Amino acid sequence: MEPTLDVVGVGNAIVDVISTVDDYFIVAHGLNKGAMTLIDADRATSLYASMPPGIEASGGSAANTMAGLASLGSSAGYLGKVRDDQLGEVFVHDLRAAGVGFDVAAGQEGPPTARCLIQVTPDAERTMNTFLGISAFLGPDDIDEELVASAAITYCEGYLWDMAVAKLAIRGAMEVARNAGRTVSLTLSDAFCVDRHRDEWLDLLSDNVDLVFANESEICSLFETDDFDLAADRIADLVDISALTRSEAGSVIVANGERIVVPAASVSRVVDATGAGDLYASGFLHGMARGEDLARCAEMGSLAAAEIISHIGARPQVALSTLVG
Amino acid sequence: MEPTLDVVGVGNAIVDVISTVDDYFIVAHGLNKGAMTLIDADRATSLYASMPPGIEASGGSAANTMAGLASLGSSAGYLGKVRDDQLGEVFVHDLRAAGVGFDVAAGQEGPPTARCLIQVTPDAERTMNTFLGISAFLGPDDIDEELVASAAITYCEGYLWDMAVAKLAIRGAMEVARNAGRTVSLTLSDAFCVDRHRDEWLDLLSDNVDLVFANESEICSLFETDDFDLAADRIADLVDISALTRSEAGSVIVANGERIVVPAASVSRVVDATGAGDLYASGFLHGMARGEDLARCAEMGSLAAAEIISHIGARPQVALSTLVG
Repeated sequence: MEPTLDVVGVGNAIVDVISTVDDYFIVAHGLNKGAMTLIDADRATSLYASMPPGIEASGGSAANTMAGLASLGSSAGYLGKVRDDQLGEVFVHDLRAAGVGFDVAAGQEGPPTARCLIQVTPDAERTMNTFLGISAFLGPDDIDEELVASAAITYCEGYLWDMAVAKLAIRGAMEVARNAGRTVSLTLSDAFCVDRHRDEWLDLLSDNVDLVFANESEICSLFETDDFDLAADRIADLVDISALTRSEAGSVIVANGERIVVPAASVSRVVDATGAGDLYASGFLHGMARGEDLARCAEMGSLAAAEIISHIGARPQVALSTLVG
Repeated sequence: MEPTLDVVGVGNAIVDVISTVDDYFIVAHGLNKGAMTLIDADRATSLYASMPPGIEASGGSAANTMAGLASLGSSAGYLGKVRDDQLGEVFVHDLRAAGVGFDVAAGQEGPPTARCLIQVTPDAERTMNTFLGISAFLGPDDIDEELVASAAITYCEGYLWDMAVAKLAIRGAMEVARNAGRTVSLTLSDAFCVDRHRDEWLDLLSDNVDLVFANESEICSLFETDDFDLAADRIADLVDISALTRSEAGSVIVANGERIVVPAASVSRVVDATGAGDLYASGFLHGMARGEDLARCAEMGSLAAAEIISHIGARPQVALSTLVG
């Protein structure tokens, strides 16, 4: 059967709380600059109390990617878990208002909607501290198998691997997609996340993934090397298509025994790196869904990423369709 | 007794939900462009559902003014009511993190924390739709009389007048301030709000207010005239000091039988007018608290307002103390 949806994303449904801080704040609070660190409810409370005033904006890696896809003109759906609380309401509103299909029932008990406390430093780097809340309890029952089977591409967030039940949900979604003859995509999400799940992911990539997204530190972490070229060679043995991002150095696509190097799109001022990888994936997947060649897919990824890093927050502020031409 | 606090603000404790829309949205949803309209819970739900993705940021007119004062280096406290919900937590965090004292107990029952659905149009004008929620239930018991008596200036938001119990709270605060020999200030808040309370406010201004803030449409509404000069003459008969703002035409201070005209501070690009009046009041009150002359007070108001309209949201993004010199 022909797919009726371009992409479905599976991920942690998170509201971002974004503050601008100086580097001293990062050091003083023992934060892992540039990384995503999981924190519990108590730490979330104490860290929040010490943060400057912030703004709240919907986030979540795969959700950002789906919002970007919708903004580009692709059809996108999302699977993730919120509570029936105010932040959950914000998350659902923003995703639907962005044009992404979202129908997972909000949890009526358990922990609150996930939040990510993000510190943006003057160098535009973002440091993320995530309290997963109920998002970690996305379970196999929350996976709408018909929706997954209807999507040309199923895009899963590596972050979800940190919780056993969510991992089951992802594995289930990947299986449904494979059985329906669809493309399965995974983003490695975070170098520390890679470190926690290396062996399992090497198997998963080899057996179940057609398209992988990773930045330089993630792909190097996967193969425990400092040598990007070596890591790029290694991933080529496991996965059909790898889209490897290198910040201002652009991206490298490894596929069909070839490497395609695509420059980053120019940005007049980088304000907040949050969402750069997520939106790169939006552009790339949009190209794939349209049958573009890989170089053009990467170019679309670069354009979408350039928009997102030029402002605070990880959701597009303009219709991305106007940028990719 | 010498005051130990510069200013205490009394107002509706509100979290803003800010979206960028085109003018068609304003027309299609029957919104009052540029005004503040009160909406009930049902309307808030339906309007929110139709809004594009937004960001959440703490707001509330007097709370914005207090955050601005703290950013300028004045000491400020706040009286307003939130629920013990997630938006309430956001409001409290942001105000305290801004350096404003805030200790009113969160309500444990009743309506949720107030929210204001704000549409920003391409002309940078903001259209506000406020669901007052529990903020309208700020009652006389929530007024910390010691705090009010300790503040050199008590600054009240006209918006509060829309609810009977909150009106009592304000009147109580004004009485405490007067009895302690302090300065009482009122902002007229909104032309429609003026229209709803004209007669009562004319009495209040005459008997209980030392310093009034109003923009051109508010002061003209108060005296039911289109003639700004006439309105400025009339208010001079009622109140010692009137600070009248006229957007890009700057402000006019009417006091001691004189008028002082102060230009607006230059802004490279006006992005979002939300908070312009609130932050003008911050600068003006900061000058008053420091014993500056009225022209300098107005100049400080213009500088603080210029910062706030150059970005989305009504709380300062830089330390205002660095701008006023």
